[in-house]
Amino acid sequence: MDAPAYTPELLHRMGQQARAAAAQMACASAARKAAALRGLAALLRSHTEPLQAANALDLERARSAGLAEPLLDRLRLSPAALETCALGCEQLAAMPELIGTVSGLQQQPSGIRVGQMRVPIGVFGMIYESRPNVTIEAASLAIKSGNAAILRGGSEAIASNRALAALVQQALGAAGLPPDAVQLVPCTDRAAVGQLIAMPQYVDVIIPRGGKGLIERISAEAKVPVIKHLDGNCHTYVDHPCDLALALKVTDNAKTQKYSPCNATESLLVARAVAAEFLPQIGAVFAAKGVEMRCCPESLQILQSSTQLSPAPLLSPATEADWSTEYLAPIISIKLVAGLDEAIAHINRYSSHHTDAILTTDHGHAQRFLREVDSSSVMVNTSTRFADGFEYGLGAEIGISTDKFHARGPVGVEGLTSLKYVVLGEGQVRV
Amino acid sequence: MDAPAYTPELLHRMGQQARAAAAQMACASAARKAAALRGLAALLRSHTEPLQAANALDLERARSAGLAEPLLDRLRLSPAALETCALGCEQLAAMPELIGTVSGLQQQPSGIRVGQMRVPIGVFGMIYESRPNVTIEAASLAIKSGNAAILRGGSEAIASNRALAALVQQALGAAGLPPDAVQLVPCTDRAAVGQLIAMPQYVDVIIPRGGKGLIERISAEAKVPVIKHLDGNCHTYVDHPCDLALALKVTDNAKTQKYSPCNATESLLVARAVAAEFLPQIGAVFAAKGVEMRCCPESLQILQSSTQLSPAPLLSPATEADWSTEYLAPIISIKLVAGLDEAIAHINRYSSHHTDAILTTDHGHAQRFLREVDSSSVMVNTSTRFADGFEYGLGAEIGISTDKFHARGPVGVEGLTSLKYVVLGEGQVRV
Repeated sequence: MDAPAYTPELLHRMGQQARAAAAQMACASAARKAAALRGLAALLRSHTEPLQAANALDLERARSAGLAEPLLDRLRLSPAALETCALGCEQLAAMPELIGTVSGLQQQPSGIRVGQMRVPIGVFGMIYESRPNVTIEAASLAIKSGNAAILRGGSEAIASNRALAALVQQALGAAGLPPDAVQLVPCTDRAAVGQLIAMPQYVDVIIPRGGKGLIERISAEAKVPVIKHLDGNCHTYVDHPCDLALALKVTDNAKTQKYSPCNATESLLVARAVAAEFLPQIGAVFAAKGVEMRCCPESLQILQSSTQLSPAPLLSPATEADWSTEYLAPIISIKLVAGLDEAIAHINRYSSHHTDAILTTDHGHAQRFLREVDSSSVMVNTSTRFADGFEYGLGAEIGISTDKFHARGPVGVEGLTSLKYVVLGEGQVRV
Repeated sequence: MDAPAYTPELLHRMGQQARAAAAQMACASAARKAAALRGLAALLRSHTEPLQAANALDLERARSAGLAEPLLDRLRLSPAALETCALGCEQLAAMPELIGTVSGLQQQPSGIRVGQMRVPIGVFGMIYESRPNVTIEAASLAIKSGNAAILRGGSEAIASNRALAALVQQALGAAGLPPDAVQLVPCTDRAAVGQLIAMPQYVDVIIPRGGKGLIERISAEAKVPVIKHLDGNCHTYVDHPCDLALALKVTDNAKTQKYSPCNATESLLVARAVAAEFLPQIGAVFAAKGVEMRCCPESLQILQSSTQLSPAPLLSPATEADWSTEYLAPIISIKLVAGLDEAIAHINRYSSHHTDAILTTDHGHAQRFLREVDSSSVMVNTSTRFADGFEYGLGAEIGISTDKFHARGPVGVEGLTSLKYVVLGEGQVRV
């Protein structure tokens, strides 16, 4: 599995090929794109064995290098993971075609009719870490959205990614589409990333997926726009008045259904008026599941003096740093607030503007929270864990944008497109 | 008119004030924003004399510095120009409120309802050159869109801009909105621009208006997204079949109605099958108006041998560079093409992706041109001169984006906003 050596010419040529392929993809019919997606799904199923053989090479190399089990897990392409990829391709194929739709066509005072047509962005560059299934997610979204993509996966997954990318190109060719529409950078040199993010003549946008450090570094150095997904310091606010049974169920889910996703709740705010009743209940749930609670002085006192708790909860005082921390672990920060105003102010100050939820029965409070909390997803009476492209009906997700520019929140096919103006006249001239 | 000296602390403080004001503007009611806009219109009308006195200082300084008459013209704040600014504010006030509208709210399989709410971007930085009325255009769009803005006008207009910005802040205050929502950088030091475009903690997007050199420099150095408006090398393609009378009228308008705007046609493509009939007619129009024609060999021959032309047309052979040139002057490049395919290929190669038009009677040709030409505005049977926010019904325009990311084409209120997800549940949890 010797990867070719990196040369600037290699990336340059890939860029030129991507541009040429993007022009063809922009005009590709919905039928061809769907055929490529269905073909890819079929290839993933018929090549489960060779894909796993390639993946085994990566896993072996990673094990020798001493990678920890959670990292090996992310690298693993199980038959179930491949089937999920195949289903994702088929779901995208079945979704309505977005490219070419014209919206808002309206006559203006001059008589011209003006509307907007949805078109692909052009070429996107995707930089990701160990999970090889991102190769298929990115490729399938590129195909559906009529873009070309240059993919740069983690070096630890290079054998898996090359095997997957070969199938993508085979499916594109079989559907009469340019195989260069999805290209994998075949070498693992770091210099390739530096060049990929600085070729505005070939690449229109960069989508990095990985740790905050990686994304900040890429954003600082990129010469093209970056769809950023920084951290997810998500809040759940238990309001007064609220349905405490609902609040218990939803808060539990938001924190404990899975600890590692970016949309898991990391901080719990509780209105003072319901704290004495609610905190011991949720404290018991967290204690039973081994969730450490880092508390403001008031919430600490309530939880410490609660006699309902068994086993003894893991309680400690929160520091200022806790309010800004994304734990991605069985830890939650807890703070009492006077009410809605303080909750909104706290969230707008400490949240990473990813996803924040209010649990309330007050309509006015819900409306204010939705309007005033400055986050990419704002929720009422449901779990922050729902912030996800599939759950939002986008069909697939290339990432979650914590930016406000272009795309905000889960980014699916639409986030990889743009709108151009179409103007229809019958000989009108400007006076 | 001594401007305060530039210090990094000055811009830092303005950034902090803008962020604080942006949070208030995002929640401001439609009524307050409309009151500020109407109040600003009234102030512009009641202060025509002091505004012109301030403008006279700028004009005098510019004249002493030897500025050419067209530049003086752009600097001039005539009573008519002020009235246009006032009317623009009133038009924006009357437009429907966009902020807070929720679209596409739809139930997902889990039972949650997911939609998108339109919200302001936050803070935009505007960098522009001599025209002081841009101060009012930018301020009024900031108010309507619920953003805060930091404005940096040209040093030659500093007295006019300071007088205008003072009225803007007065109108904001009178309507109960934070005056810091629109701040003018009071000093003319170049270092202020460098700092303004590199404060991602305070400024979310930069909008430069000016020459291509300025915009390229800012794009290269900015640490935040830039809404770019590079050059407008616009094409009009006279197809076969077409209505030649319509083509004559529209081509004339696209080129000669005004020479300096970015949406004026700079290049004329003509299908070979109609060239012998059409070229002598349009050649006569251009010759009569003193428009120089830079022609491909075939079109040159047709125009030279045409006997209808009087006065003698200004004809010369086009060079390769002509196909890429935005003249902003009474000059046009002319090229014969075999038909639609060659026209589309030529435009996609040489156009600046601003605005391109086809004049045709063939429905299929029109549809292909709209789909396949990769420009921010694509037009059928009308003049490229219509590419404008007012003509498109946007109410006002902060610039025309030749980018594909975020906003494309004329950018109005909507281009200064973003969409956040709103999720409404009744206790649903993720399984």
